Amino acid sequence: MPVNLTAPNPTALLPVAGVELGWAEAGIRKPGRKDLLLMRLAACASVAGVFTRNRFCAAPVWVCREHLRAGRGVRALVVNTGCANAGTGASGLADARTTCAEVARLLGCEATQVLPFSTGVIMEPLPMERLLAGLPVAAQRLAPAHWAEAAEAIMTTDTLPKAVSQAVALDGQTVTVTGIAKGAGMIRPDMATMLGFIATDAAVAPALWQDLTAEVAGASFNRITVDGDTSTNDSLILIATGASGMAPIASCEDARLAPLREALLAVAQKLAQAIVRDGEGATKFITIVVEEAASATEAARVAYAIAHSPLVKTAFYASDPNLGRILAAVGNAGIEDLDATKVQLYLNEVWVARDGGRHPDYREEDGQRVMRGAEITVRVLLGRGGASTTVWTCDLSHEYVRINADYRS
Amino acid sequence: MPVNLTAPNPTALLPVAGVELGWAEAGIRKPGRKDLLLMRLAACASVAGVFTRNRFCAAPVWVCREHLRAGRGVRALVVNTGCANAGTGASGLADARTTCAEVARLLGCEATQVLPFSTGVIMEPLPMERLLAGLPVAAQRLAPAHWAEAAEAIMTTDTLPKAVSQAVALDGQTVTVTGIAKGAGMIRPDMATMLGFIATDAAVAPALWQDLTAEVAGASFNRITVDGDTSTNDSLILIATGASGMAPIASCEDARLAPLREALLAVAQKLAQAIVRDGEGATKFITIVVEEAASATEAARVAYAIAHSPLVKTAFYASDPNLGRILAAVGNAGIEDLDATKVQLYLNEVWVARDGGRHPDYREEDGQRVMRGAEITVRVLLGRGGASTTVWTCDLSHEYVRINADYRS
Repeated sequence: MPVNLTAPNPTALLPVAGVELGWAEAGIRKPGRKDLLLMRLAACASVAGVFTRNRFCAAPVWVCREHLRAGRGVRALVVNTGCANAGTGASGLADARTTCAEVARLLGCEATQVLPFSTGVIMEPLPMERLLAGLPVAAQRLAPAHWAEAAEAIMTTDTLPKAVSQAVALDGQTVTVTGIAKGAGMIRPDMATMLGFIATDAAVAPALWQDLTAEVAGASFNRITVDGDTSTNDSLILIATGASGMAPIASCEDARLAPLREALLAVAQKLAQAIVRDGEGATKFITIVVEEAASATEAARVAYAIAHSPLVKTAFYASDPNLGRILAAVGNAGIEDLDATKVQLYLNEVWVARDGGRHPDYREEDGQRVMRGAEITVRVLLGRGGASTTVWTCDLSHEYVRINADYRS
Repeated sequence: MPVNLTAPNPTALLPVAGVELGWAEAGIRKPGRKDLLLMRLAACASVAGVFTRNRFCAAPVWVCREHLRAGRGVRALVVNTGCANAGTGASGLADARTTCAEVARLLGCEATQVLPFSTGVIMEPLPMERLLAGLPVAAQRLAPAHWAEAAEAIMTTDTLPKAVSQAVALDGQTVTVTGIAKGAGMIRPDMATMLGFIATDAAVAPALWQDLTAEVAGASFNRITVDGDTSTNDSLILIATGASGMAPIASCEDARLAPLREALLAVAQKLAQAIVRDGEGATKFITIVVEEAASATEAARVAYAIAHSPLVKTAFYASDPNLGRILAAVGNAGIEDLDATKVQLYLNEVWVARDGGRHPDYREEDGQRVMRGAEITVRVLLGRGGASTTVWTCDLSHEYVRINADYRS
């Protein structure tokens, strides 16, 4: 059961001028479900991406990087679910290229103007015949109103589609920001998430757009974890079509940049948090705030040490305030000169630990009360400096094991 | 259910001259179970220890280090289960010191000649009244034949006691090596395991003994993981009483060192592997061999990336040859310049992957056959150099979640 997450209301998803979406039920892995997505972009859209750092990254990730480097502009994105096309060697690369060539033929552009994405089982070949047969079906459905169907078409073990939309006024002109994402397991994005696509009809110069993409990823998808496993296929793509007709934002000094950045970050954070709320087997949504760190890197190490500890995660699942496990995780974060007597721990507003041990006023029933909730904030103060970070994660439940033991069957 | 592990046969456990053991049912956490262990050592025993690197290390770990540094010799060890005395601040330190003082009074030695150990729940105070009341009971039972009871007295979530014994001939004289260990969860020793005690009546000079201890720990307890959580209380103690009457081994050139090292390592590896076989919820015993690494550190990073991946561990639990998850974990180990096309993967004798993808001769049914077994070897060749390592781990099952969600209740 996802934690405080519902399916997006299709009527609340704003179309983005310059983006059309179409889908097919191609039967990639199982018949009768949307599993192929095509996106057509207006010419001149600024498109930037951040990708997984997993060294076994998937064939489509290689091809995406290659096509973005080619600099011919991006006119289409093609996404399949059911098969990751990762750990597939040279034939996997050939399959990704063939997919791009076929999309280019259908839409009348160049193959290097197409970005391919895959998600699903690793080390199995793409069923190319079914995939190619699905492409014309998806192309026929291309229309600006199809964001809700697009969010469905990229799901794997997600129990709900994830889509977020927001309008933002830039100096009197309203533009829209709409994004979709998928992912529930193998989630510990390092540069990006499983798959995320966010588009706006604002106009932003390409170099500035790439910087903005990295910044948004760093404060949203790069701050979540379900199980600590970085996927082979993580990709986050930000698209600025410019189809609103506004004069392009080309400088950091432009006053329209701040509200646009804020809207992009709000959409990205909501999508990233939706992935955690729908994390495999999740029953709780945990926010981990680390403050008073010597550096942002150090703050992140402590936050992830807590977020990845199976013992901390099972204690959350059990609503058991076995909070010494959090202290053990902090001690485990690899900070050689950490002084345990300076560390403070809060659970929501409850002061749990200080001076290297339990706070004298801490009462088990207060911890118990917080642990019973579905949304919990862990706050750790390290007493070392002024850096801080926030990471979002979920608990580890029976259901996580069931889902991942049964995934292929 | 532990994987191919049975309770030690008490009659097969050899007493070690110079070591006496006694226990009590002190009711530290629950009544009616052995939870307190006392060990008395002959004067002049060489005693060396390696301890957790967790910065929230427990009070008894601080006191152990302090007493070993004092260099007055070690005459007794005292171990309680049920409470870790970690995350307990200044009062925890005082409790550990009080325990040592009381043992010293009972046995007629100095408090600094006593090493204290605790294991159990973190961030709760030691029940000192019950603990102190149990000490005279344990002292009355001191006898060389009590290794089996000692192994029981240090258990927490272990389903079976762990004890291993071996006789070894050193230049015509036979000495014995006997050890006990405990641990099933929060197991990713970094310098040592949860609790391990290995004793021999061989005579070895103290400096050489400390080196031997670090070497043995590095190739046994420091090569296992259940859940990646390094405990606050990890301690491994090696004891050479010298009570066999042999002339001490004082130099690396001594021909008796090699067979003694071999016996110590064999006992330590069996105990370490017993911890994995009895890992919380374990249904499989997995050996991970990484070869052709550029360095031993790199080999260990890859091995632990595989061993800690929840997706790999749940696939083993399901007997599902979803082996792309292993490639993803290899790609995830943080080796920036890894060339995925050079990596090879074997499951037992089955060649699964090469050239960055699935081996053309690999058949799913072969992978399935290996995955169904209870003992599986994963072998990864990195194609980067001549370093290698071996790590032992287990799978991640429903039972792990159940045990850790219910631990305190």
